[in-house]
Amino acid sequence: MADEVVLLDFWPSPFGMRLRIALAEKGVKYEYKEEDLRNKSPLLLQSNPVHKKIPVLIHNGKAVCESVIALQYIDEVWTNKPLLPSDPYLRSQAKFWADFVDKKIYDLGRKTWTSKGDDQEAAKKEFIDCVKLLEVELGDKPFFGGETLGFVDVALVPFYSWFSVYEKFGNFSIEPECPKFIAWVKRCLEKESVSKSVPDQDKVCDFVVEMRKKLGIE
Amino acid sequence: MADEVVLLDFWPSPFGMRLRIALAEKGVKYEYKEEDLRNKSPLLLQSNPVHKKIPVLIHNGKAVCESVIALQYIDEVWTNKPLLPSDPYLRSQAKFWADFVDKKIYDLGRKTWTSKGDDQEAAKKEFIDCVKLLEVELGDKPFFGGETLGFVDVALVPFYSWFSVYEKFGNFSIEPECPKFIAWVKRCLEKESVSKSVPDQDKVCDFVVEMRKKLGIE
Repeated sequence: MADEVVLLDFWPSPFGMRLRIALAEKGVKYEYKEEDLRNKSPLLLQSNPVHKKIPVLIHNGKAVCESVIALQYIDEVWTNKPLLPSDPYLRSQAKFWADFVDKKIYDLGRKTWTSKGDDQEAAKKEFIDCVKLLEVELGDKPFFGGETLGFVDVALVPFYSWFSVYEKFGNFSIEPECPKFIAWVKRCLEKESVSKSVPDQDKVCDFVVEMRKKLGIE
Repeated sequence: MADEVVLLDFWPSPFGMRLRIALAEKGVKYEYKEEDLRNKSPLLLQSNPVHKKIPVLIHNGKAVCESVIALQYIDEVWTNKPLLPSDPYLRSQAKFWADFVDKKIYDLGRKTWTSKGDDQEAAKKEFIDCVKLLEVELGDKPFFGGETLGFVDVALVPFYSWFSVYEKFGNFSIEPECPKFIAWVKRCLEKESVSKSVPDQDKVCDFVVEMRKKLGIE
């Protein structure tokens, strides 16, 4: 039986982008289904009844939810171009930094443009500090995965597509503070699996401007 | 070289209990080091410089942080009595429910006794709903892992030691609402790996009463 792979996704979602990149890296063909998050499809509600969130990977009718878990699933099922190393300690470290992205980069990134006043200033400072920590972890390697794109690269690079949003509405500049990080992003974007899976920053920014208008925010 | 295993822990921590149970299940001998969280040891700060949190598993000098990641590490290094199944889909489901425990049971459990008024009422209701969802996931199996203790069992059962705290300070009763869950807890506690790793509810409750006195809370 040929594999039937469906991805329930929403184009500006960095979590969805992770799965798009991983599937592209592995050369897995799949059907992309865009979700309207204000009017979720019966398939989404049935596939992720607990969280009702995208992305959901549906493989031969079985749903896998939560992007970091789905990344591991993809890596275990399609074993060409491994994302995680085979050594247990190195695996644990890659999972640690992917978890750091979820706990820090996502949350702080959101706060840089949705909070105000002192909270916003604190979020911007902590966000930059976290990106700098990631630069230290990257060290002199071309990718977090070493010579090739790995688990942390795939988990992290999608957030770059939101940097213009953070910068515009947070009124600060990330790029001059973190040149090493930006050089890494550019290396990632040279890979078609990344460049075709991650939308342009301007497109994400326009989407946010529209959304704020609809919600009546300034 | 014999394995040198050290666990930096704090006895009432449900996250630490997870690693104690897993190491006991696998029969791994280790040195337990109790941390004073108001005066963290140099070893903790050096082993987990990012989050500065317990538990940390140190195996032959290498530190693994974040309990769910450390559980997977333990399962990959000591392969007797596997916690995770070998099938990728079943693995993803076990990881999903462990993640659910972290995102819902931990957070809501804490809110049942630290929040007030409407927030507290909502947290208590949602907490019970989540425990009931776990009962559905358990189904007719003796353990989440099937016939034996598995990944979700190890991740979840430590929270039972905090139930008296939730009930006393949240002023509600969990046990009558979730008899199937309690029956599962009792099956887990029949295993020495669990009963010796999880403190008595009264001891945790006394600890919280003392802590609240020190902090000047009612």
